[in-house]
Amino acid sequence: MPRAVVLLSGGLDSATLLALAKADGFEPYALSIDYGQRHRIELECAATLAKRAGAVHRVVSLDLRGIGGSALTSDAAVPKDRSADEMNAGIPITYVPARNTILLGIALGYAETLGAHDIFFGANNLDHAGYPDCRPEFFAAFATLANLATKASTQDGHRLRIHTPLLHWTKAEIIRTGHRLGVDISQTLSCYDPDASGRSCGRCDACQLRIQGFQAAGLPDPTLYLP
Amino acid sequence: MPRAVVLLSGGLDSATLLALAKADGFEPYALSIDYGQRHRIELECAATLAKRAGAVHRVVSLDLRGIGGSALTSDAAVPKDRSADEMNAGIPITYVPARNTILLGIALGYAETLGAHDIFFGANNLDHAGYPDCRPEFFAAFATLANLATKASTQDGHRLRIHTPLLHWTKAEIIRTGHRLGVDISQTLSCYDPDASGRSCGRCDACQLRIQGFQAAGLPDPTLYLP
Repeated sequence: MPRAVVLLSGGLDSATLLALAKADGFEPYALSIDYGQRHRIELECAATLAKRAGAVHRVVSLDLRGIGGSALTSDAAVPKDRSADEMNAGIPITYVPARNTILLGIALGYAETLGAHDIFFGANNLDHAGYPDCRPEFFAAFATLANLATKASTQDGHRLRIHTPLLHWTKAEIIRTGHRLGVDISQTLSCYDPDASGRSCGRCDACQLRIQGFQAAGLPDPTLYLP
Repeated sequence: MPRAVVLLSGGLDSATLLALAKADGFEPYALSIDYGQRHRIELECAATLAKRAGAVHRVVSLDLRGIGGSALTSDAAVPKDRSADEMNAGIPITYVPARNTILLGIALGYAETLGAHDIFFGANNLDHAGYPDCRPEFFAAFATLANLATKASTQDGHRLRIHTPLLHWTKAEIIRTGHRLGVDISQTLSCYDPDASGRSCGRCDACQLRIQGFQAAGLPDPTLYLP
């Protein structure tokens, strides 16, 4: 089986992504980045999910708190109880500057050390319509870059591919697919601001989208929310 | 003065780059990445050089040892005493997979938090002719990506520029320019395998290119080499 690097945050989307990579016939190598995110308890979820999927799992530490610029990597408050209009009004403070460029860059390095030509990334352009680095043209530009950036790209003629199968899916479609592929959704974490024991706030943008997704999918939500 | 992010390794090239960015009228924000490089004593040089240049200096930690794949981020031996033919024969084991993609990605994030539209990077395509991510087309592709990747690229219409002024310079030209601009070259480190006190080995590819550069420039080499 060809190897593939799967960026695994520990959330619902990337857990489904990991199952999709396996279903597509790849041997997945899960990669998580500890970038100083306030919800870093998601990394424990990632470890559990990778283990259940039988995937090698690496965690690379990157201290993005050194440059700040986001509520996820600073002590700024995570917005809560926002309406759909507010969520769609612009790029929120939970956007992390250049995060997807950086994550994909590290995944590219890992792919090169593995001799892998495939990277799976669970970006979604519906949930994050305002994020510049969740647009299809961003991923196309990254694939162009990747095919110039590596030793493999100068030597063996293989094309590196960036797979973003979830890009245009609704949250309900992601949940249904994860459910169908046997993902243990109770082990995933979406919340930007969980408590120390991993319970979700239920009020940040990520929680609201998740809750609405389970409702639309008509499936029970196994998430533990704060009362 | 417009702000610019300057990637500063602590080597000769990036020290000259920092002086060039200032000479070009930018307020430089120096950024160093502690990526687990075995020659991480270069980070102390970077701090000294930034201070002398009056630049803000940030160090971001990134544990690339987690993915390995290079003599610079593993315990593999650094090649010594290679001939020019050997150096030009292919991509050496000191190549770090996707390193420049990752470094530029972090610089892009820092630029976005600063509101800067200019990134200076001291890549050189003569010394590193075999490195895929030192080619002009790589930097052009990164600039295309950067202009899709950030909040600024969707909002304020400013173009992000990647400056690589040293790309086609000889080492002698870099040394002469650094000297002319007042860089304290004795505070720079090029060696891939220095001892604990910062003395250079004199035998790795980087040392050999540096020694030859000073000879070609006709300037004294202030570097402390191991006997």
